[in-house]
Amino acid sequence: MPGSTSTPTEDEARAALEAHRQSIDNIDAALIHMLAERFRQTQAVGELKARARMPAADPQREARQIARLRELAHAARLDPDFAEKFLAFIIREVIRHHDSIAGRTPGASA
Amino acid sequence: MPGSTSTPTEDEARAALEAHRQSIDNIDAALIHMLAERFRQTQAVGELKARARMPAADPQREARQIARLRELAHAARLDPDFAEKFLAFIIREVIRHHDSIAGRTPGASA
Repeated sequence: MPGSTSTPTEDEARAALEAHRQSIDNIDAALIHMLAERFRQTQAVGELKARARMPAADPQREARQIARLRELAHAARLDPDFAEKFLAFIIREVIRHHDSIAGRTPGASA
Repeated sequence: MPGSTSTPTEDEARAALEAHRQSIDNIDAALIHMLAERFRQTQAVGELKARARMPAADPQREARQIARLRELAHAARLDPDFAEKFLAFIIREVIRHHDSIAGRTPGASA
């Protein structure tokens, strides 16, 4: 049925929908676990930066990340604008975490 | 150095930061590719729903997805509220895609 433009029967449509949903559920579980690991890494970075008195934000690193993710997205046929929005969404959460670490750690940059 | 509370030297801090950043870059590449595949699946779902005249939104499915992702996040020590915000962020993009498919496909639900 992939690529078909005809109207599927209700049973065909339900079966096809269920198959896609199982794939989406597997992908979502992978995404959640990758995000959990990413926050473990950025948590460690936040603690390191606080101990080493390094500034929490690094605009040059962020610019390199954005450029790289846009390229990866383009190659994977994902909208590069969406990839950039996604990274911004994640980084907002990371900065929120870092600020709360900095608030707890003596000598950390504000 | 993990778990240390002493102040690292600048070289130590730079080396540790670089190691974390390599992990973060690998994770981000994985996230982008999983997201690309997720949108391939939801694109197919959007086209299927349009052909089969099924409604674009499915609040019961979304409620099940939220509950499941919150559980997975909890098990992976990721903030369940963040996991829910993340899913909402993705679903907003999916609905934007579906609306544009529905707009192009005769007979699709609005």
